[in-house]
Amino acid sequence: METKSTRAYGTQSPAADLQEIEILRRSPQENDIAIDIMYCGVCHSDLHTARNDWGGTIYPAVPGHEIVGRITQVGSAVTKFKVGDLAAVGCLVDSCKHCSSCEQDLEQYCLEGSTGTYNSADKFIPSQRTYGGYAESVVVDQHFVLKVPENLDAAAVAPLLCAGITTYSPLKHWNAGPGKKVAVIGLGGLGHMAIKLAKGLGATVSLFSRSASKIQDAKELGADHVIISTDEAQMEAVAGEFDLIIDTVPYVHDVNPYVQTLAISGTLVLVGYLGGLEPILNTVPMIMGRRSVAASLIGGIAETQEMLDFCGAHNIVSDIELIRMQDINTAYERMLKSDVKYRFVIDMASLKD
Amino acid sequence: METKSTRAYGTQSPAADLQEIEILRRSPQENDIAIDIMYCGVCHSDLHTARNDWGGTIYPAVPGHEIVGRITQVGSAVTKFKVGDLAAVGCLVDSCKHCSSCEQDLEQYCLEGSTGTYNSADKFIPSQRTYGGYAESVVVDQHFVLKVPENLDAAAVAPLLCAGITTYSPLKHWNAGPGKKVAVIGLGGLGHMAIKLAKGLGATVSLFSRSASKIQDAKELGADHVIISTDEAQMEAVAGEFDLIIDTVPYVHDVNPYVQTLAISGTLVLVGYLGGLEPILNTVPMIMGRRSVAASLIGGIAETQEMLDFCGAHNIVSDIELIRMQDINTAYERMLKSDVKYRFVIDMASLKD
Repeated sequence: METKSTRAYGTQSPAADLQEIEILRRSPQENDIAIDIMYCGVCHSDLHTARNDWGGTIYPAVPGHEIVGRITQVGSAVTKFKVGDLAAVGCLVDSCKHCSSCEQDLEQYCLEGSTGTYNSADKFIPSQRTYGGYAESVVVDQHFVLKVPENLDAAAVAPLLCAGITTYSPLKHWNAGPGKKVAVIGLGGLGHMAIKLAKGLGATVSLFSRSASKIQDAKELGADHVIISTDEAQMEAVAGEFDLIIDTVPYVHDVNPYVQTLAISGTLVLVGYLGGLEPILNTVPMIMGRRSVAASLIGGIAETQEMLDFCGAHNIVSDIELIRMQDINTAYERMLKSDVKYRFVIDMASLKD
Repeated sequence: METKSTRAYGTQSPAADLQEIEILRRSPQENDIAIDIMYCGVCHSDLHTARNDWGGTIYPAVPGHEIVGRITQVGSAVTKFKVGDLAAVGCLVDSCKHCSSCEQDLEQYCLEGSTGTYNSADKFIPSQRTYGGYAESVVVDQHFVLKVPENLDAAAVAPLLCAGITTYSPLKHWNAGPGKKVAVIGLGGLGHMAIKLAKGLGATVSLFSRSASKIQDAKELGADHVIISTDEAQMEAVAGEFDLIIDTVPYVHDVNPYVQTLAISGTLVLVGYLGGLEPILNTVPMIMGRRSVAASLIGGIAETQEMLDFCGAHNIVSDIELIRMQDINTAYERMLKSDVKYRFVIDMASLKD
């Protein structure tokens, strides 16, 4: 396989800072698209992978799965894209394309295992892992490339590729829309997108937050109500209220107080936390109201395109802070302190400095 | 309020055997129907209430919420029933009738609290609790009285009023039908009805059981497959298989091995267990397949009628063992040992012996 040396930012070990490294990208095959990366969002998963918080990281690791750029080359079989198009790549760059999940446009649940944009086995260059968007360019199968509405700020589009679709997909699957009451737990990268998207879909939107300092921000993002989750009276006042709760909290937390706030037949969907539910989940309020606890992972490619088109039509983007590639390590430290409104996006032009 | 002394079987304390007692039934009001009870099914909830296993039992307690009988009297406002009709009463005898749940025919989730057939506050005779179907007769608001298809064995219809609707409602809510794979956990009163109803609805039906001794029984009831849940190879063979799992196990148990057997977007519905989910629920297989854990309580009145009509059309009844009222204490002991295929039904004529 012909390859090309490419500038990127990655890490060689869990404790090391990210720094410039050289990686290989394959030459575009007949179904491939080469993209010059303009912007790449910074997701919590990037940090967890860089530091091997979940185990399984193979080094060097190059994070980044919220990618926006311009197409520079297309393979001979590429029909839907042309050189010069604004394009995006999210969390997935490949899947089996023939299992029942892939056939239903649910590539994120590919039964043979989808290929993540970073830290997955690379089908084309078996000697290395897939390397993400902290790089000057990327080469991706056309099926996993998205069109970006030209009316949107390209930098602020980047976080839609993970934070956006991760919240849009459960909002759509569980029928958020006019007449529905949606609540969002947590106001970070995912939470702020959940508010904007639920509002865009026509739902009445509430935010659960532990901090009264979030009230004004949440309302500016479109939330109709803010419930301070540490205030028992406020929690009791919304008992049985919500048709759908999008729980974006990324660490272990007690979901039982939130289950109580679900309406009859309501669903709480975990999108941020992977692990055991502690304290234990009490089924009594579930059985007494046909309530569900569910979980959801990003979204399929067709739904990601639908989300981007929806954002184009409704003028929805992420609130971002643009950073230079060289500032990524500082950004990670600030992200750990939730010191970002609401997503860092790397201006990849800085990599050339 | 005019009342009538009525023969019943009840208990005066958690440790006491059930024995004959006298209770009061109100005279039928304009919306009421009086029913001579022919048969009453014996549900695990009867035993738990009689023995105060859940707390909250007020004595004397008269259990029984799977009631079939003949109408002997109707109030002046009763339109849909007449004297002589075969009728049934399930777990509910009243609700507020105006909350959003009641308006959606979900009386079981009445926001003001529905009135259980036994051990609830009696709106008409405030000095006593509601008394269930272990009695010669009952008086019930017409809204909570069901029509019984005349083609079915009336005794074997009785368990449909709790075991039947408890499994039918989630089967319908989560779209069991042709092309869907449904699994049932546990082969007792609820489990055997879940198999029959899921099969009747056109689904492919599997039973999870810990015991190979259940294989033949399950297949006779209509199960297409039986998975021995203690056999790891059999459990692995059905990973990702089921669109819907009806979990009828009435005690705390590990649901994690079953969640793994859900298909993408599948749902496991608890219908037997009230309490904390121990060991803790692992969200990883949930998020990796948009899987849900839910719970469901009996069903609404309209849906209960729909279920009875469905059973009439498909010739579905419970497998029962008919007992005399005087044998109820022995029946409870046998029920605790799961020594019944699959539901005891009391022949209420025995109360006159």
